[in-house]
Amino acid sequence: MSASLVPAHEPPYYAVIFTSRRTEGDNGYGETAARMGRLAAEQPGFLGHESVRGPDGRGITVAYFTDEQSIAAWREHTEHAAARAHGREHWYEEYVVHVAKVERSYASG
Amino acid sequence: MSASLVPAHEPPYYAVIFTSRRTEGDNGYGETAARMGRLAAEQPGFLGHESVRGPDGRGITVAYFTDEQSIAAWREHTEHAAARAHGREHWYEEYVVHVAKVERSYASG
Repeated sequence: MSASLVPAHEPPYYAVIFTSRRTEGDNGYGETAARMGRLAAEQPGFLGHESVRGPDGRGITVAYFTDEQSIAAWREHTEHAAARAHGREHWYEEYVVHVAKVERSYASG
Repeated sequence: MSASLVPAHEPPYYAVIFTSRRTEGDNGYGETAARMGRLAAEQPGFLGHESVRGPDGRGITVAYFTDEQSIAAWREHTEHAAARAHGREHWYEEYVVHVAKVERSYASG
């Protein structure tokens, strides 16, 4: 996760919620995850992302985008598609994706 | 987080994404968080929740509900409202809430 929380943007915008259980061992995951984070940040419509993994291997990553088109473009990015395919085979015991339109948001302070 | 990931339900349904940075020390947080998890699971329209906190104190919790009315009812639950008020004062340096309507979802395997 970056230095601060992703702020409450002005709705509507989109959240892609990715929950997962990792396999044992790194197997190149850390390097690719960092690379994907940097690449995602360069995509049009990208608003930010947050990722936390607990000691039991369960993780939640949420990426925020301005619209569906931006999500689709990132999904089709060649390097990202290859990373996802590799992840399905090697990094994840199980994962679930929920794509959701943010209708309201607010922050502390 | 419970034994398995919250599955991809049939859309539409709602996700309440709560991201936060904790203050130092437990200060009663663990006990209340566990109690709120049990209470939430008893609410009408509750579909599941997942919560992960990293070693740096940053956390992501996602609670899934069938509809807006269920979110509103849980938000107004007396004990939950009291816990949130206490949390704002004592447990969180910072938090952000994004309430989002899930439009599609899918799972591995």
